[in-house]
Amino acid sequence: MLGLMQDWPLLCHRIIDHAARIHGSQEVVTRSIEGPIVRTTYAEIRSRALRVAQRLDRQGVRLGDRIATIAWNTARHLECWYGIMGIGAICHTVNPRLFPDQIGWIINHAQDRIVITDLTFVPILEKLAANLPSVERYVVLTDKAHMPPTPLKNAIAYEEWIAEVDGEFKWKEFDENTAAAMCYTSGTTGDPKGVLYSHRSNVLHAMMANNGDALGTRAEDTMLPVVPLFHANSWGIAFSAPSMGTKLVMPGAKLDGASVYELMSTEKVSHTAGVPTVWLMLLNHMAANNLKLPHLKMVVCGGSAMPRSMIKAFSDMGIQPRHAWGMTEMSPLGTVSALKPPFMELADEERLDVLQTQGYPPFGVQMKITDDAGKELPWDGKTFGRLKVRGPSVAGAYYRLDTNILDDEGYFDTGDVATIDAHGYMRITDRSKDVIKSGGEWISSIDLENLAVGHPKVAEAAVIGVTHPKWDERPLLIVQLKEGQTATREEILQFMEGKIAKWWMPDDVAFVSAIPHTATGKILKTALRDQFKEYNLPTAAA
Amino acid sequence: MLGLMQDWPLLCHRIIDHAARIHGSQEVVTRSIEGPIVRTTYAEIRSRALRVAQRLDRQGVRLGDRIATIAWNTARHLECWYGIMGIGAICHTVNPRLFPDQIGWIINHAQDRIVITDLTFVPILEKLAANLPSVERYVVLTDKAHMPPTPLKNAIAYEEWIAEVDGEFKWKEFDENTAAAMCYTSGTTGDPKGVLYSHRSNVLHAMMANNGDALGTRAEDTMLPVVPLFHANSWGIAFSAPSMGTKLVMPGAKLDGASVYELMSTEKVSHTAGVPTVWLMLLNHMAANNLKLPHLKMVVCGGSAMPRSMIKAFSDMGIQPRHAWGMTEMSPLGTVSALKPPFMELADEERLDVLQTQGYPPFGVQMKITDDAGKELPWDGKTFGRLKVRGPSVAGAYYRLDTNILDDEGYFDTGDVATIDAHGYMRITDRSKDVIKSGGEWISSIDLENLAVGHPKVAEAAVIGVTHPKWDERPLLIVQLKEGQTATREEILQFMEGKIAKWWMPDDVAFVSAIPHTATGKILKTALRDQFKEYNLPTAAA
Repeated sequence: MLGLMQDWPLLCHRIIDHAARIHGSQEVVTRSIEGPIVRTTYAEIRSRALRVAQRLDRQGVRLGDRIATIAWNTARHLECWYGIMGIGAICHTVNPRLFPDQIGWIINHAQDRIVITDLTFVPILEKLAANLPSVERYVVLTDKAHMPPTPLKNAIAYEEWIAEVDGEFKWKEFDENTAAAMCYTSGTTGDPKGVLYSHRSNVLHAMMANNGDALGTRAEDTMLPVVPLFHANSWGIAFSAPSMGTKLVMPGAKLDGASVYELMSTEKVSHTAGVPTVWLMLLNHMAANNLKLPHLKMVVCGGSAMPRSMIKAFSDMGIQPRHAWGMTEMSPLGTVSALKPPFMELADEERLDVLQTQGYPPFGVQMKITDDAGKELPWDGKTFGRLKVRGPSVAGAYYRLDTNILDDEGYFDTGDVATIDAHGYMRITDRSKDVIKSGGEWISSIDLENLAVGHPKVAEAAVIGVTHPKWDERPLLIVQLKEGQTATREEILQFMEGKIAKWWMPDDVAFVSAIPHTATGKILKTALRDQFKEYNLPTAAA
Repeated sequence: MLGLMQDWPLLCHRIIDHAARIHGSQEVVTRSIEGPIVRTTYAEIRSRALRVAQRLDRQGVRLGDRIATIAWNTARHLECWYGIMGIGAICHTVNPRLFPDQIGWIINHAQDRIVITDLTFVPILEKLAANLPSVERYVVLTDKAHMPPTPLKNAIAYEEWIAEVDGEFKWKEFDENTAAAMCYTSGTTGDPKGVLYSHRSNVLHAMMANNGDALGTRAEDTMLPVVPLFHANSWGIAFSAPSMGTKLVMPGAKLDGASVYELMSTEKVSHTAGVPTVWLMLLNHMAANNLKLPHLKMVVCGGSAMPRSMIKAFSDMGIQPRHAWGMTEMSPLGTVSALKPPFMELADEERLDVLQTQGYPPFGVQMKITDDAGKELPWDGKTFGRLKVRGPSVAGAYYRLDTNILDDEGYFDTGDVATIDAHGYMRITDRSKDVIKSGGEWISSIDLENLAVGHPKVAEAAVIGVTHPKWDERPLLIVQLKEGQTATREEILQFMEGKIAKWWMPDDVAFVSAIPHTATGKILKTALRDQFKEYNLPTAAA
């Protein structure tokens, strides 16, 4: 028997309707790409989003068509999100930090019909445009006065473009499982893969994020998302903040410490979200100038692990650091390290231990860890296995890729290796392709690296698995010494001894002049594995 | 084009799965019906709920079958909720405060197969049982030692009943629109009407309730729901608290001030929810004994309007009073009076004005006010009209009642008359059947009553519309004077003059010795309307 409740599809544009109706005068403040700080409201954003929708509709954009945005966090970008989604088209956020070739590949793979871009990215697009046959028109997010001359096809300033319609328009209605947005992941290997969010997944994700142990902003709060709208669905903030009537402060293109600090201070920002690099710049700027942020209550940090010193720095200022973990495929929220009651009373260092985990999932995200055969492993905080996830905001497939990415129980393999403790706190210990598999047991390359860089002479360390006749793989520690330092193999190993299980000890140490990195600063282990493919471990003969 | 996210149905039992897995050691504390305080955990509740499910399944209970509960707030009752819903059966909560005839009517209308009851209600059921042919068995929520001798059909103690299975059982899987629970509304007129909640509506309602401007409890909080599980879906707390890992304190049968205070104090309750009557008892007990509740942060108050003095009393203690409005048909959350930024800085009295409204809706509840013809009225805080609501947790129809209850836009008429201001704050001004329709304009009977009872000689006042040849209806003020007082018509009207619009002034005053009430203490306007049907207003001849 079915229930007798109303059929009310979860549609993204209903969020901006709610914001406009209930929190219509709430401000959205933007550091504009043209320079000045500009202020608007949720009511105004909805009204302009409807113009975007109407203009796209007049252009013949239909349900399922892809519209790309390559843009910073601004009110105009937010208007485009809702305008595109509100007619059932798909808002494809393109990450401008990718290599131009990748940007071109992605736009062609998505077959985007229109590209909406900030002034910043016009030069990149001019170089790519000849090879983007699906694109019919380029809309530049500015007004006529700031519009540059450009050979881009049918280029027009955004303000002129939306002035061509009168705004008398209604959202389209469709099923909540309709695609709403698209975001490509860019792994270190293989082609980028497109995640296709639905209206349902975005709305449910916003509702999950709104609980007080996740992002939990309220109508009285002010959120500055440093995390870009083009990065992993903006961690859902483009939906969660309007759904609560939270004031938004959009930092535009300037993400340096001084600029972010200035906005946080003048706009009395209470909540913010971004990657550790940004917080490092902010903390350095504040320390150098002896500055405070008395209104700041919470810093959500994801993208990569938050260093312990950073967690401590924010905590010491009375600001809650919230470690978050997720991925594009998860919309992206996976876990958040809010403190649960058993840990509220902990003393400083133990408290930091918990805050340094990736946290536990909100209702709506299910996790498990398994061995290579798919067998579930215990939640004891020690055993680590492949981290797999399930939920209404987790990807079930990639766009135009005919591969099953779910296991028999419907779980998606995150590619991370993690432990989970009895309280559900998850700790990433490695990427599954980097973990060292020694005699059927797993050794975390990240744990060994973190230990090795603690040695005063070591600048950077990388650990990879090298083939071993008896154990399959054994760890090789690759070290780049600090400028002017010398050290021996024994010296480094001795430093590590006793701090880890004996069988975790690297079988050898290789010294290199420079450890290779990816464009985004991660250690390029594929290159190291190539370089040390034939490496002969001293233990191999044993 | 559809999105490519996972198909993960929103099912109620996934909430208890989450609570058990992530917050398994979190406590649920109960003042048991047998007497002692008993403690259990979410892990244990899930495990026992699975036994309930397995036992029902063995009994042949299938998808869509109705199972009644007539019980107080206890951990056992909560186990039954999840156990029943987890196999797709329907948990029909019966309100034991109804007249026995109504209880019988409701059980027969629902065709409940099993009745699960507290010891308290065994005598009532024994009187009704002969006329409840659909009921195959009665389960009494106690153990063998406390089981009374009873002629109830196949009666068994709950603990014995669930001990008949081993707990090795899996939840059933089904569509999220499957019916999960059922609750009858009992109006003053007509037969009770059954609201049939779905798994989807309950889960979405919990997610709405979890935002910080609604109920917003967290894993660090402790919630004591005074509102019973049998009243309006327990305001969703049976789902929202476990979904967040919030500790639950269940008050059982004792809802007097001293008992509620004792549990709040010993269990360090931070959040609580219930009707004004309960808070009055609590406040009186605290004042009489000079007691404090330093851990209490928020009191959610619904069911009827919270008096201004009560809002002030809690505020003065540093406790947030949250006025909430809703109805069984809304799962029940409609609006909550959290303070939005424009009102945070208000001085005391103006602040109370906002807190005294019914508040604004969370994302997921849409409101409008209309005139009798269905035309939308402005949100100016003054104009009042019929309040209509829409959303995924709002009823679309009643059980076994073939009547369309939605308007053309899919809105449900709440039967209330309200104003809404520009910020979305809603204020109930009347019931639509009580509002006085004078020359096409509406006059609030409640506003006139509130004004009249301000006169020092008036004990209680009721206002009804009486037929008028020119204006259709005009207000008649019916007054019950305080013991020993005398007053004239002119004296009362003079007191009201200048405090309301001239055309709102009652056309006459009738003095009565006693104003009639319903069983739950509300003014019985139907009786007054009967009594004064032929009343000849002095203005009628004009």
